[in-house]
Amino acid sequence: MAYLPKRLTGDQAAINEFIDKFDVFLFDCDGVLWSGDHLFEGTVETLELLRSRGKKTIFVTNNSTKSRADYLKKLTSMGIPGNVDEIFASAYSSAIYIARIMKLPAPKNKVFVLGESGIETELRSEGVEFIGGTDPALRRDITPEDYKGIADGSLLDDNVGIVLAGLDFHINYLKLAHAYQYLARGAKFLATNTDSTLPSNHTFFPGAGSISIPLINMTGQQPLALGKPSQAMMDAIEGKFHFDRKKACMVGDRLNTDIQFGIEGKLGGTLAVLTGVSKKSEWEAPGAEVIPAYYVDKLSDLRG
Amino acid sequence: MAYLPKRLTGDQAAINEFIDKFDVFLFDCDGVLWSGDHLFEGTVETLELLRSRGKKTIFVTNNSTKSRADYLKKLTSMGIPGNVDEIFASAYSSAIYIARIMKLPAPKNKVFVLGESGIETELRSEGVEFIGGTDPALRRDITPEDYKGIADGSLLDDNVGIVLAGLDFHINYLKLAHAYQYLARGAKFLATNTDSTLPSNHTFFPGAGSISIPLINMTGQQPLALGKPSQAMMDAIEGKFHFDRKKACMVGDRLNTDIQFGIEGKLGGTLAVLTGVSKKSEWEAPGAEVIPAYYVDKLSDLRG
Repeated sequence: MAYLPKRLTGDQAAINEFIDKFDVFLFDCDGVLWSGDHLFEGTVETLELLRSRGKKTIFVTNNSTKSRADYLKKLTSMGIPGNVDEIFASAYSSAIYIARIMKLPAPKNKVFVLGESGIETELRSEGVEFIGGTDPALRRDITPEDYKGIADGSLLDDNVGIVLAGLDFHINYLKLAHAYQYLARGAKFLATNTDSTLPSNHTFFPGAGSISIPLINMTGQQPLALGKPSQAMMDAIEGKFHFDRKKACMVGDRLNTDIQFGIEGKLGGTLAVLTGVSKKSEWEAPGAEVIPAYYVDKLSDLRG
Repeated sequence: MAYLPKRLTGDQAAINEFIDKFDVFLFDCDGVLWSGDHLFEGTVETLELLRSRGKKTIFVTNNSTKSRADYLKKLTSMGIPGNVDEIFASAYSSAIYIARIMKLPAPKNKVFVLGESGIETELRSEGVEFIGGTDPALRRDITPEDYKGIADGSLLDDNVGIVLAGLDFHINYLKLAHAYQYLARGAKFLATNTDSTLPSNHTFFPGAGSISIPLINMTGQQPLALGKPSQAMMDAIEGKFHFDRKKACMVGDRLNTDIQFGIEGKLGGTLAVLTGVSKKSEWEAPGAEVIPAYYVDKLSDLRG
């Protein structure tokens, strides 16, 4: 039988017990700490409260366009104190996975990137060779010479062993054609994350999943996704921070990414906030499959 | 129990009986009449033979980038005599469907097009208003103003009631963002065709399905597809040519588009050729679901 999450809002005893239970809090950001460019009231104070009680705070985001340094700038610009080591983004997660887990033998270990500079920065930081990405040579229309050279391989790099698809605001036909051909020739298929949409301005825009899905449809292959809820990301986070999963809590606004990520990762707890995508009615619905352990109306309710 | 198709190659009596059985032959083109830019030997003579015996020939293509006039140029350049009324392409099929079947009431009947000039030509020929398509104003990067204006609707056309997705060699993030937002606001979702790939240069490039799939993934909606094997296309063909389906035969190289199109359309026959995508082993495999009535090794085997 399904359980219902415990509501912490307004219950100081339960809040104290909740906070005492965990050493580490993993935070999704958009919809939890802020929405778009609007910082939620009390976010800074709530993080401060947790830190003052000795808790480790880690910011976990599927945003693949930003490097950790870029994301720290975003936190800082929102007025949230933090440091780069507290940030875990899907571009970084992907770079870690490629460099430290896949470790393809040279020379066929180059990455063809569909994505923005954040991915490039993180690949560079892990010493991973790549092509594509923000290369201006690929930001143009396809030509008859491209068809020929992509088909016969003369325009391809023989050392590409991985295609990594993230959110690419400069996606075009030429890049998709290259990516498909590398996959058809046996490259491994990775995605920073597969969120179909990107929430922005109170609506949705195409997400990283919109970049990988044409390739999934063309090849019949599914990429290994390195963002939430993929446990490859959880493994990478644990590998870096070395915490006890039972003493960690995932905080997020989306049941099918954040909360599922925490549950599948067998963390000690999951906390949903109602300031983002998912509504209370979703876990109260008959047959609901992803149910948080706790919820608050808004994050700052943890201040009591 | 599954049947096996009758092989006509080398069997003059069977060929004669086959040809006598039909008044109308619907031809897929690429993989049947030619491959890429290479005309198969005997194509022109085979069409001539059928026409000399009083048969109607109709060219049915999912190619959505070309208008019928464009496609006639392609036939002519390949040395195949024909006229524009023999051509039925998915761009035309889409225009017919929108103008004559959907007939949305004005003013909310404008089409947002993802695709090339062939679609625009056919929409114009049917008097359908559209935006998007080859408009240079959409061939650029997305800006912060776009996010705002797309989200709040100030950059959208209130009269768009349909999103039509075909193969767009100039697909980009900005166009996908517009298309998504029109769909989210209730526009009907059509696709010229949903082929995931475009065969070219003996390999594959992204097909029209690569343009619609991100929108399917974002919205959870399936478009009505107007190309093969959609019966909306068959209905449009019959509506134009008024033939007896029992006296018509679909000729093609792809089981899951061409042959399925003919079978679902309850045509009198289907003829597979082995000069394209599908192999004999596919219909001979246990559990094969799409099986042609006849096959030839190559189309010109019909010359006996």
